[in-house]
Amino acid sequence: MIKIGLYGYGNLARGAECAIKQNSDMTLSCVFTRRDPASVKTVFGDTPVYHADTVLEHKDEIDVLIMCGGSATDLPVQTPAMAEHFNVIDSFDTHKNIPDHLANVDKAAKAGGKIGIISVGWDPGMFSLNRLYAESILRNGASYTFWGKGVSQGHSDAIRRIDGVLDAKQYTIPVQSALDSVRRGEAPDLSARGKHTRECFVVAKEGADKARIEKEIVTMKNYFDEYDTTVHFISMEELKRDHAGIPHGGFVIRSGKTGKDLENTHVIEYSLKLDSNPEFTASVLVAYARAAYRMNCEGMCGGKTVFDVPPVYLSDKPREEIIKNLL
Amino acid sequence: MIKIGLYGYGNLARGAECAIKQNSDMTLSCVFTRRDPASVKTVFGDTPVYHADTVLEHKDEIDVLIMCGGSATDLPVQTPAMAEHFNVIDSFDTHKNIPDHLANVDKAAKAGGKIGIISVGWDPGMFSLNRLYAESILRNGASYTFWGKGVSQGHSDAIRRIDGVLDAKQYTIPVQSALDSVRRGEAPDLSARGKHTRECFVVAKEGADKARIEKEIVTMKNYFDEYDTTVHFISMEELKRDHAGIPHGGFVIRSGKTGKDLENTHVIEYSLKLDSNPEFTASVLVAYARAAYRMNCEGMCGGKTVFDVPPVYLSDKPREEIIKNLL
Repeated sequence: MIKIGLYGYGNLARGAECAIKQNSDMTLSCVFTRRDPASVKTVFGDTPVYHADTVLEHKDEIDVLIMCGGSATDLPVQTPAMAEHFNVIDSFDTHKNIPDHLANVDKAAKAGGKIGIISVGWDPGMFSLNRLYAESILRNGASYTFWGKGVSQGHSDAIRRIDGVLDAKQYTIPVQSALDSVRRGEAPDLSARGKHTRECFVVAKEGADKARIEKEIVTMKNYFDEYDTTVHFISMEELKRDHAGIPHGGFVIRSGKTGKDLENTHVIEYSLKLDSNPEFTASVLVAYARAAYRMNCEGMCGGKTVFDVPPVYLSDKPREEIIKNLL
Repeated sequence: MIKIGLYGYGNLARGAECAIKQNSDMTLSCVFTRRDPASVKTVFGDTPVYHADTVLEHKDEIDVLIMCGGSATDLPVQTPAMAEHFNVIDSFDTHKNIPDHLANVDKAAKAGGKIGIISVGWDPGMFSLNRLYAESILRNGASYTFWGKGVSQGHSDAIRRIDGVLDAKQYTIPVQSALDSVRRGEAPDLSARGKHTRECFVVAKEGADKARIEKEIVTMKNYFDEYDTTVHFISMEELKRDHAGIPHGGFVIRSGKTGKDLENTHVIEYSLKLDSNPEFTASVLVAYARAAYRMNCEGMCGGKTVFDVPPVYLSDKPREEIIKNLL
């Protein structure tokens, strides 16, 4: 049995707790929190919860530590700190800081003889893998990533910070005509506006100026100004009833040309339709936790990404069985 | 520059020759044939063609040998024979014989200190990888592979062997309602008939009994009897005009459930739409030729599959650049 620890306990960790139950070669040993451990109730209630400060006292109980904090301030500090002592997996998703984060994790993991796999999930993660595979096969082509339909936490938060807003949910939606063109292999040149629209469901405070709120949303720099944005004002009851989920998904599509005169067109498409973004991300993390454990057992160490992991390590089945049944 | 040799020169090799031109870190050194080399005209005409019997005399000109023969009789013999002397890649696709073939290639490759990657292409190949990734992530779920719309060479050949048939082309087509149900995450139980239909375009000899030919097709054991099959009789001109291509493709879809009470559904879909089956397969072979070369340079040897290859080895770009731009 591979013994897993969860460092941090929010939506992602709850998803990991559920995912571990579906993997018969794994067990959840313990959960670490910076809150009062007595205040944390796990999904199944059968796992000890310890304070994060005591994590090193539990080294023997853990083969792989799944880092469940946020990318903004938690993971850049926590993953390197833990990588010296544990095999770790994180879902770090601040794209521009990935090289620095990887360097920090690599240094710590090598010092401790451990493996640290960063930026695991679906984007970064499975989408990244599909961008790499598709680009390596179809050399003369164009790649596209579309996100949605799904909830963007960052954009929802940005709306909530506007004066007069009680709560909000923002959906990112691919533009269907753009998707269709990419799928036909037309390799269109697409602007931000041409690829996605944004739809916002906003609960305003009693008496708030809705016209001003709407204007502040649609003109917000870096978040909405480059997109066609629709704003719907709804009641708190409607928000809770119709927009409680955290669905997401998207598409990675590459089209390319082959043949003597580039006369043949090929389209590779990978898509995800997810009812729960954190639960799916957690399921990917758990599969890569298995890979980290196995690679470390074989003597490998250092900072890794999904690009570095041979797919065979992700499965709980023996290699012979995978080759016989899935190849 | 990675020096590639092609062993065998048919549709697949022609596709590989075109694909190598799109990879600036590779060069096609030579082509080997069992025919009279003087009778072989390559696509671009700028590659020496040698007789297959002389392949060992050209060891210094080749870093990776791409095996371009057929799975029925060529590859089971040729790939192990060559794996002792060269890094080799093949597209062996007789599913039930893959374990034996891998064992033979592994033994030869280890004896020679070389790498042999077998069963590379799209199925087996990219579809296999996607079955493994999806199954490793969504543990509680169901997987489906649909093929088509595309030309099945084996089924077309079977029709051509019927008395009174001059030529024929058979298309395998996924059943749309089955695809839709799988995509909705309904995990339906599907028979062979429920997943694919077969459409045949047949040119009959002057005066042949078309009713008998049609009956022989639709009742043919292992090929057509378990499917809904449509037969169209057309002229040779129509066949040449409308059915000259070798398109193919398909879908690997897995749906699965997560959450405390399995309340959330996720769907992972990978699809290919290919104008030319052999040219796409060749493009995959060429990417894995790069991986074989790199892995062997790092000291690895033996029989491998797509499951064993870290994705990073497929790209001509440095790891740092891949991480920065694609992760």
